[in-house]
Amino acid sequence: MAREQEFKITPIGGLGEIGKNMTLFEMDGDGFLIDCGIMFPANDMHGVDYIIPDYRWLEERDDIRLHGICFTHGHEDHIGAVQHVVRSFPKVPLYATPLTKGLLQVKLKNARLLKQTTVHGFEAGDDLKIGPFDLETFRVCHSIPDCVGYGIHTPFGIVVHTGDYKFDNTPVHGRKTDYARLASFARRGVALLLADSTNADKPGWTKSEAVIDTALDKVFRNAQGRIMVATFASLISRVQQVVNAARAHKRKVCITGYTMSEYAKIARKLGYLDVDDDILVDLGRAKQLPPHKIVFMVTGSQGEPAAVLGRLAGGRHRQLDVRRGDTIILSSHPIPGNEEMVYRTINRLIQRGADVIYDAIEAVHVSGHACQEEMRLMLNLTEPKYLVPVHGEIRHLHMHAKLARDNGVDKDNVIVIENGTTIELSKRGVAVGDRQPGGYVFVDGSGVGDVGRAVIRDREILARDGFMLVSVNVDHVSGKLVDQPRIISRGFVYLKDAEDFLEQIRDNITRVVNGNRRANGARSSMVEDSLSKLIYNETKRRPMIFSIINEV
Amino acid sequence: MAREQEFKITPIGGLGEIGKNMTLFEMDGDGFLIDCGIMFPANDMHGVDYIIPDYRWLEERDDIRLHGICFTHGHEDHIGAVQHVVRSFPKVPLYATPLTKGLLQVKLKNARLLKQTTVHGFEAGDDLKIGPFDLETFRVCHSIPDCVGYGIHTPFGIVVHTGDYKFDNTPVHGRKTDYARLASFARRGVALLLADSTNADKPGWTKSEAVIDTALDKVFRNAQGRIMVATFASLISRVQQVVNAARAHKRKVCITGYTMSEYAKIARKLGYLDVDDDILVDLGRAKQLPPHKIVFMVTGSQGEPAAVLGRLAGGRHRQLDVRRGDTIILSSHPIPGNEEMVYRTINRLIQRGADVIYDAIEAVHVSGHACQEEMRLMLNLTEPKYLVPVHGEIRHLHMHAKLARDNGVDKDNVIVIENGTTIELSKRGVAVGDRQPGGYVFVDGSGVGDVGRAVIRDREILARDGFMLVSVNVDHVSGKLVDQPRIISRGFVYLKDAEDFLEQIRDNITRVVNGNRRANGARSSMVEDSLSKLIYNETKRRPMIFSIINEV
Repeated sequence: MAREQEFKITPIGGLGEIGKNMTLFEMDGDGFLIDCGIMFPANDMHGVDYIIPDYRWLEERDDIRLHGICFTHGHEDHIGAVQHVVRSFPKVPLYATPLTKGLLQVKLKNARLLKQTTVHGFEAGDDLKIGPFDLETFRVCHSIPDCVGYGIHTPFGIVVHTGDYKFDNTPVHGRKTDYARLASFARRGVALLLADSTNADKPGWTKSEAVIDTALDKVFRNAQGRIMVATFASLISRVQQVVNAARAHKRKVCITGYTMSEYAKIARKLGYLDVDDDILVDLGRAKQLPPHKIVFMVTGSQGEPAAVLGRLAGGRHRQLDVRRGDTIILSSHPIPGNEEMVYRTINRLIQRGADVIYDAIEAVHVSGHACQEEMRLMLNLTEPKYLVPVHGEIRHLHMHAKLARDNGVDKDNVIVIENGTTIELSKRGVAVGDRQPGGYVFVDGSGVGDVGRAVIRDREILARDGFMLVSVNVDHVSGKLVDQPRIISRGFVYLKDAEDFLEQIRDNITRVVNGNRRANGARSSMVEDSLSKLIYNETKRRPMIFSIINEV
Repeated sequence: MAREQEFKITPIGGLGEIGKNMTLFEMDGDGFLIDCGIMFPANDMHGVDYIIPDYRWLEERDDIRLHGICFTHGHEDHIGAVQHVVRSFPKVPLYATPLTKGLLQVKLKNARLLKQTTVHGFEAGDDLKIGPFDLETFRVCHSIPDCVGYGIHTPFGIVVHTGDYKFDNTPVHGRKTDYARLASFARRGVALLLADSTNADKPGWTKSEAVIDTALDKVFRNAQGRIMVATFASLISRVQQVVNAARAHKRKVCITGYTMSEYAKIARKLGYLDVDDDILVDLGRAKQLPPHKIVFMVTGSQGEPAAVLGRLAGGRHRQLDVRRGDTIILSSHPIPGNEEMVYRTINRLIQRGADVIYDAIEAVHVSGHACQEEMRLMLNLTEPKYLVPVHGEIRHLHMHAKLARDNGVDKDNVIVIENGTTIELSKRGVAVGDRQPGGYVFVDGSGVGDVGRAVIRDREILARDGFMLVSVNVDHVSGKLVDQPRIISRGFVYLKDAEDFLEQIRDNITRVVNGNRRANGARSSMVEDSLSKLIYNETKRRPMIFSIINEV
């Protein structure tokens, strides 16, 4: 008997947000991906630069032909892993709206991969044919222009994937959500909705980006000196709003930092950033202008010490400094885990004399994601038979699920899954399938995936208590020490201030080595055990301890 | 000419919150302290257990006689360093309201210091004589019972110190803010107000603790299975509210964890926790009760992995587990920096099948601090000539300052200072004095202050990229290697998976050692430099590198 036909959907990634960074859609041996973004490391993922979805199992599958990678929008968590995916699947074409295509091309160019792949552009609203799959695209609003969601035709009804969205009725670029298309999906029958859950714990309606115009106008009106606005490089519509405010208040704009400049350049070229030539100035010119005539756009709104704002806060920027009278706007909200660094940056900027405006003070930032009322609207517009909440931590998915059930979706038709778990859509409805292996792939320096859990665990221990290494030379005949043990330690105690303790440690080593004539491996363990006890008793700390015994 | 008489105030501590944990008041060689609390380490203060204010300069001052340490309330950030301070100033008596006294005694007992000091009890509203100083105490509301502020008489007017406060008109224990005393200070002339700034960026009025009763009632009514409530051990009034809800819904209460049990015991004994004997059950009995008949009170509401809730989330609690049908309430709000761990804990509990309720979902927690309208009320009640905002990060102090100026306090009379800076009150008004040395004193294991900036910096480097140590034996005549280099590395790459790279490293070491006949110190540096370059080129990482050269 032939296997029943199934349309399968698998969100790919580790924990963190589910169905956010990359999702596989497949049927009968054909497939395509939506998005390939990066995750940002948690505070205890020491030394990790960023994380990419673990799609190694997909590379190994020879029963599937990938026909394309479709993008929803140009934020890092949706496009940031493109260089890795293009290297893994070099023949698979990319599909994106013009701005997203432009940003993808910047990334591919930086990775010297521009010629290794094809990026097909399309306009929001276009229909796409990806291998055997028919996709309809529909415009949604978010905090970057040119965002789309996808309506995917399957034999079992339409699967709607919202991407990141909110229902902004006064978006910065005037291009509104494609309500008509969403409603038409409902008419034609939505089998399954995959919808953004980010703000599932927030009641009401996310404010329009338009409120930021009012807040910026107020701040610009009150500012006497220079203005600096920090935001994400990819928040193109925010850059537009700052440019508009600058124009209204007769200030020039200086965009600092490589990525933000590159993104602004491509957005301008493609018509997504409306800014006259005479408004933009370079840093050299900007520094010569009177303070009330200039706005700097900077990166570092998440408190990253190495970004422009972080360096300004620490007094470590080579060309710019923060002075009394400066007004600094953080047009952003801390990503969970970054709060401490963001507030520390703000405190340091205030210490340097700046007036710092952030979203708790004025509406200089709004979320790019739907709140509860918008989630209800999305359900009511699309009338899905099944809902799989995506784009959120587990707690958000569960709240979205509850909201959907309360809103009338059949209790059993709301399905919460984690990354790696396959959803199977067939004529019998939706079922939960297998779980694929995989989790995080850490990128650290130039290494992809070579730093695993074991290394991170060692870093955790080293971070907590450091290490101590002792090296001793013993006579190969008597087995006794021939000179003083050498001790190397970092991150444990400051040894120069601990001479007495060091003496105790040396005595301990000497006693153990000279008192036990064993094989060096066994003696080495004895030294480590004995030191470990001594150190714990004296300090209540557990540094990593190593010993090397040399016969001379 | 005699020096002009001055009443001096010095907040003590590092950065973080200012004037929160410990403040010195002094005049003419006499002095007293208000509070001695701990700070919690930031995420990048690796391995630090907690931080105490750096009062070493005060220990060294022989021109001042300390007459007492007065406490505002029993939270850790106000009493948590008492064992350190009592050891440093063994003859100085402590003054506290009954509950605070009880909690101090628990701490002193655990540190075996109960007999080393005297704790004088007083009731809110009592007048105190501390050496030559006259203090009036006044009740304030916060999130623990028995909180007071101080009105300190000086020749230049009254100095009012609010401590942590909010104006709760329906507090859990019915004891309300002493409005009359605050107003009477105004009549008699407040020279200077030191006031809580924690919520200076929050408009409006903090909700009363009473709203939590309603929220708990709703959650208890809906819960089918067991209930677990996580909060701080010292949030005695929250424990009371949970007990009340349990009583109303006919559930028994099991208080888990050593500290929470100890605190509840002392609060009960002193009459601050009203709970009948038959409501409290121990863990053994609690586990035998039907799920709908029990509430567990647990610690770990800040996501601490070692606390009860963290162990439950990770499946690492020996006697309890989380099951489908459990309702878990986090009656708390993440302290900045803890968000990631708190949300991770919530996600894990949900994965285990629990229904998790936190403050974004129901009003199961409210802040213990005044919002902007309450700050205005405090200013209007006390009518201070000068304001020094305290209890907040720099950003909060600046917002409080702005609010006070907008509220009519003379622009020049609002003074923002940082910890260590002395405020001098004299007949000429308030001036900013010297800055005392000092910052953080880290407590790590049993070490107090022995982990300094240098050690933390090393831990940071180790956390990011780990270390590599190579040990080589060379012939003492030829200077050439006599065997293979030994390599020890942790937190860098997983060496077992990197055999080729390891071979490269060994070759590099051999080449440098055999090719350079120098003194071993110089050769050791050459090995380290060469390895460092090789490793950076191959991995773009910078582990700490050490080498030991042994002549054999």
